[in-house]
Amino acid sequence: WLEKQKSLQKIINVPATTLDGKEIQLDININSQNDVDFALSYDLSGVGLFRSEYLYMDRDYFPSEEEQLKAYKNVVKKMGSKPIIIRTLDIGGDKQLDYVTFPEEDNPFLGYRAIRFLLDQKDIFKTQLKAILRASAMGNVKIMYPMISSIEEIRKANYILEQAKEELHEKGYDFNPNIEIGIMIEVPSAVAIADLLAQEVDFFSIGTNDLIQYVLAVDRMNEHIADFYEPFHPAVIRMLKQTVDAAKANQIDISVCGEMAGDFNATSIFIGLGIHKLSMSSQSILQVKERVLSIYEADCKQMIDEILLCKTSQEITELVKKMNDKTNIS
Amino acid sequence: WLEKQKSLQKIINVPATTLDGKEIQLDININSQNDVDFALSYDLSGVGLFRSEYLYMDRDYFPSEEEQLKAYKNVVKKMGSKPIIIRTLDIGGDKQLDYVTFPEEDNPFLGYRAIRFLLDQKDIFKTQLKAILRASAMGNVKIMYPMISSIEEIRKANYILEQAKEELHEKGYDFNPNIEIGIMIEVPSAVAIADLLAQEVDFFSIGTNDLIQYVLAVDRMNEHIADFYEPFHPAVIRMLKQTVDAAKANQIDISVCGEMAGDFNATSIFIGLGIHKLSMSSQSILQVKERVLSIYEADCKQMIDEILLCKTSQEITELVKKMNDKTNIS
Ligand SMILES: [Mg+2]
Ligand SMILES: [Mg+2]
Repeated sequence: WLEKQKSLQKIINVPATTLDGKEIQLDININSQNDVDFALSYDLSGVGLFRSEYLYMDRDYFPSEEEQLKAYKNVVKKMGSKPIIIRTLDIGGDKQLDYVTFPEEDNPFLGYRAIRFLLDQKDIFKTQLKAILRASAMGNVKIMYPMISSIEEIRKANYILEQAKEELHEKGYDFNPNIEIGIMIEVPSAVAIADLLAQEVDFFSIGTNDLIQYVLAVDRMNEHIADFYEPFHPAVIRMLKQTVDAAKANQIDISVCGEMAGDFNATSIFIGLGIHKLSMSSQSILQVKERVLSIYEADCKQMIDEILLCKTSQEITELVKKMNDKTNIS
Repeated sequence: WLEKQKSLQKIINVPATTLDGKEIQLDININSQNDVDFALSYDLSGVGLFRSEYLYMDRDYFPSEEEQLKAYKNVVKKMGSKPIIIRTLDIGGDKQLDYVTFPEEDNPFLGYRAIRFLLDQKDIFKTQLKAILRASAMGNVKIMYPMISSIEEIRKANYILEQAKEELHEKGYDFNPNIEIGIMIEVPSAVAIADLLAQEVDFFSIGTNDLIQYVLAVDRMNEHIADFYEPFHPAVIRMLKQTVDAAKANQIDISVCGEMAGDFNATSIFIGLGIHKLSMSSQSILQVKERVLSIYEADCKQMIDEILLCKTSQEITELVKKMNDKTNIS
């Protein structure tokens, strides 16, 4: 991998554009302010996913508004006017906090987590929203809600956001009153009603890890059924398409921020589907960019038309492989 | 409830037909041969779901082909020519067997269960298929695979079924060589590719319990998030519709066998969607029948058209309530 990365250094400052001129925005997923420097050295277009839960870990209690503000500010300062999407606390499931007693759950992935936790712990949620809002006065900051499964959840979250704005306003703090609001698309119900959700928010970001888990009913950490976790399953591709189509019909932004976004074998699928924004860990950026630089958008679109006729993961995998073989990337 | 049941005794032998003459088939879910007598006393059209896992419980080892055959035969004898759908062993998740070491899993509902177990334990699976096949020589027996998420699983299961048939044939046993094969629709991916799956099988039965769990990412046993388990969620209704449409386009049978089938408040939804076969526990039969007898299919269809425009569970619940209020059922 290291050797490969070395050989890829030469494309660090090359714009990520397909052979037929389609520009693809490559963003970075970060867990903390420290990851930003790496992002800057790669000349990226923005932070597609700031996993704020890491601000809450390895501590004794919830971080205060000021503590969070400081962390968000540091990222904003470094990124300048580039967009930064901060995902509100995505806790529960496999991620716990030492200072919170989570309920004992038989199936934590289907449990009390993410937006469910936030809407239940409104003060924690509001404190975070205030910190993000204050950071939004200084840069291009956006908010993303995790694990949205219904319109009601968005409305409830936005209601708390409005309260946060009012309280900041009363105290005289600056913030962007029109801060963009997006949601993770990672629960199957969100895909099924993507056309409705798209009318409520400014952008979608597809979280492929959870989405694939739920769509296939496969815990991706479970080694006994690892074979059943199939990103190239026809149902997954169809759900990606349904989400993209809903976003486009409502003219809102669409990106992918799950691990699949960083899988260079999936790049042609995303481009074919009309997804021009991918957010991934820094380790994946250069290989995905190499892939972008070596394919034609037109080919990807044609491949998707064929993929949408496939009945099995295997057929899809073969089409993708054929496409990748064309690129001469070793 | 008892009093209500008493007052419903008078409709036991009334055919389940809507006010405008649409006949609805009400079948029973059973856990053992003992549940059949109850079914017979209710003059039902068939066994829509025989949960075979109960044959495997409270024992020291897997039941042999002969032991299973005996149980299936008893049901067949009692049901005469009425259809009996035997679901192959649906174990794992929250159902374990004392004599099988299941892997430790963080999220058993997203784990090694149902068809995944069967395709891994081929001998266990084949033994059961042989017993079902032999019972099929004596009545209207059908096979149903649980937790299907892809076409490959159906093909793998059918391959083992063909082996079972061959082995029985060699031994000179009778069976129905054209036994009908169906699948549970309970994994979101099965809904997403329902049009493809419908080409591979003779019937669908929608398992609403698991389907709703996965679509909404909510463990229905988890009290901390009970509010999030919403059968009337617009995503659930859309997925039911997608499944029905795929079944009809391919002219295969469609029924519902999850708990929602036995919820008399949902009856109008199913009829509106064009589902004319519901399978439920015996306790629910009469109340559902009462509901069928008091509504017009035409009204249900009109209601569904409105429901499909709804954005929230609450809007849908209100429409269903309005419909139910029309019936004058106390
Ligand atoms: Mg997630
Ligand atoms: Mg099930």
